[in-house]
Amino acid sequence: MNMGTKYLSILGASGSIGVNALSVVRDFPDNFRVRYLSAHSQADLLIAQAKEFLPDAVAIGDETKYRAVKEALPGIEVLSGRSGLLELASRNNVDIMLNAIVGSAGMEPTINSIKAGVNVALSNKESLVMAGGLIKGLLASEGVDLYPVDSEHSAIWQCLSGEVPTDVKRLIITGSGGPFRTTPRGDFKNVTVAQALNHPNWSMGRKITIDSATLMNKGLEVIEAYWLFDLPVEKINIVIHPQSIVHSMVEFVDGSVKAQLGLPDMKIPIQYALTYPNHFPQSWEQLDLAEIGTLSFEKPDYEKFTCLNLAFEALKTGGSLPVVLNVANEQAVYRFLNGEIGFTQIPELIDQAMNKHDFLEHPDLDDILALEVWTKSFIKRS
Amino acid sequence: MNMGTKYLSILGASGSIGVNALSVVRDFPDNFRVRYLSAHSQADLLIAQAKEFLPDAVAIGDETKYRAVKEALPGIEVLSGRSGLLELASRNNVDIMLNAIVGSAGMEPTINSIKAGVNVALSNKESLVMAGGLIKGLLASEGVDLYPVDSEHSAIWQCLSGEVPTDVKRLIITGSGGPFRTTPRGDFKNVTVAQALNHPNWSMGRKITIDSATLMNKGLEVIEAYWLFDLPVEKINIVIHPQSIVHSMVEFVDGSVKAQLGLPDMKIPIQYALTYPNHFPQSWEQLDLAEIGTLSFEKPDYEKFTCLNLAFEALKTGGSLPVVLNVANEQAVYRFLNGEIGFTQIPELIDQAMNKHDFLEHPDLDDILALEVWTKSFIKRS
Repeated sequence: MNMGTKYLSILGASGSIGVNALSVVRDFPDNFRVRYLSAHSQADLLIAQAKEFLPDAVAIGDETKYRAVKEALPGIEVLSGRSGLLELASRNNVDIMLNAIVGSAGMEPTINSIKAGVNVALSNKESLVMAGGLIKGLLASEGVDLYPVDSEHSAIWQCLSGEVPTDVKRLIITGSGGPFRTTPRGDFKNVTVAQALNHPNWSMGRKITIDSATLMNKGLEVIEAYWLFDLPVEKINIVIHPQSIVHSMVEFVDGSVKAQLGLPDMKIPIQYALTYPNHFPQSWEQLDLAEIGTLSFEKPDYEKFTCLNLAFEALKTGGSLPVVLNVANEQAVYRFLNGEIGFTQIPELIDQAMNKHDFLEHPDLDDILALEVWTKSFIKRS
Repeated sequence: MNMGTKYLSILGASGSIGVNALSVVRDFPDNFRVRYLSAHSQADLLIAQAKEFLPDAVAIGDETKYRAVKEALPGIEVLSGRSGLLELASRNNVDIMLNAIVGSAGMEPTINSIKAGVNVALSNKESLVMAGGLIKGLLASEGVDLYPVDSEHSAIWQCLSGEVPTDVKRLIITGSGGPFRTTPRGDFKNVTVAQALNHPNWSMGRKITIDSATLMNKGLEVIEAYWLFDLPVEKINIVIHPQSIVHSMVEFVDGSVKAQLGLPDMKIPIQYALTYPNHFPQSWEQLDLAEIGTLSFEKPDYEKFTCLNLAFEALKTGGSLPVVLNVANEQAVYRFLNGEIGFTQIPELIDQAMNKHDFLEHPDLDDILALEVWTKSFIKRS
């Protein structure tokens, strides 16, 4: 608890990760001070958060809401639009930027913060999926660290604490299997949006909940783990664990396996990313394994969840493929949520985009942004 | 693997822990050199081990076998009897003394090695159960470390790696529940030696296997954990886990739980105690949770396994009680193995000894040795 005060920038503050992060700040007012907040469109929540946490500046993505935010927050600098977000992400007078932005829009803020020499607590897995190579280079040159926020990567990070990286044999990423773990493949074509949004364990945003139903979320996590922990794809395995209590594991070369467990609640990994290397005391509901009784494990069904194969293919081939995978998935999920396409069309459209795009071996930032535009357009008209 | 060469003393080399430790030495000849070996009575095995590993000296406990060992090992110093063992344990030209001696006989060798400034890899839990306070004082004054070898304590030790001790909320020691987990208490009086020796998961020596059937082993482990990890008894919990895959856990103050897992095989913790802080590569059978399928957990039944209550009582009261608990248990188990008493008499005799002895608040080494003599005699004539 003698950590001193950490200055925070919380981008994507109005989502569930951002709200939970601000709850941690509320619990430990001596240890955190919020300098920057951003939200895409939820101006009212951003205003309320700013009134409570008194940041130096906020950014509202939706420019039509700029005036309302500005008038509600006298004495606080207010930025707006994509450029406002990117400017906030570039400021260097914070210790940690928590990137809780949803989707590919979060990639550039990650890059800007690293370039500013700011450590990034990364909830936005798309940053590494789309620009892993670029970001790794910047981390090394800027001497900046990434703190994982995803429960799986936080688990691996915690299991690696005090260990020698070369002693790692493999990572075992757990996944609940989502709402369709036991649904026959033949029934996938009839899956409704409501069914896909009904996750058995986790309460999350709509996009990631659909990703958990297709298991694309697990695929994106494998790619994220590849970049975070510097291991070849062969050493990153997935095991299905329906209870979501074991959040992931690390096996060492002597056969010893370390796991991190907890109730399925994002509060723990969010707080840990902010308090690392310490654990801060909380009276959250305690894990009681005797009460839970049973933890079960099974192999993932790659024939049923074809998004997993697409993700492994993208990671193995690399280059521009993960960019297209991620953006195509994002757009296909939005089209599914809008009722425009069926559940089984999600992997079909991603596969088409991956096959149709002009492959690049080493895309730079401009290439990635251009690929994003192409892929969005491709999925929209498919 | 660039650890350099560690010099080892392996006391109790003929038991399963000692044999496994020598197998690790055999696997990594550049990293280990055996200086000393001891065995209580298995002279033939000690001779074979000495011929393979060429120690500077060996000690054979059974004095009647001294001549045979001496003649078989020309050029190697041979000691014998209790005094020979204690002398070997006092030698200071080794990096680690692995104490794999069974039972209370292992306590003094632990003390001697610490006094000689030698780090102790401790498989002999009785050392800490009987003389925890004494040993903690010596560790501090001599600047010596203990490396746990018990699978449960190795698990906790691994989970604490890289963590801040004050962040620990509680330890969760797992236990299989032994062969009588589901046996009604009413049937305990008919338990045979063969049934009690039939442990569901672990292959171990006879004494510890009976301790696993009464759950006294778990009680002794709680006491050992108390001394190893400096936590009050309220923060050391037991959960029954019949599959023996999760070897123990640590819960931190933020609700994050770390666990160490592995197939139930002592090779991993034995090797880790010798290679710490590294894991050395082994091609042992790999843990496959999808293959295992289910891990289950339940509360221990304190009404059925009364040895657990005796152990908690001994730990809470402290002083001479843990000494009497341990020695009385040891002798009662030997009487049970000899067919002299029934299974339910084990806790009864321990309880009597704990009640009848002259309580000492702060026993010194002489007091402990005197208590050992009294308790052995008490149980033999009860």
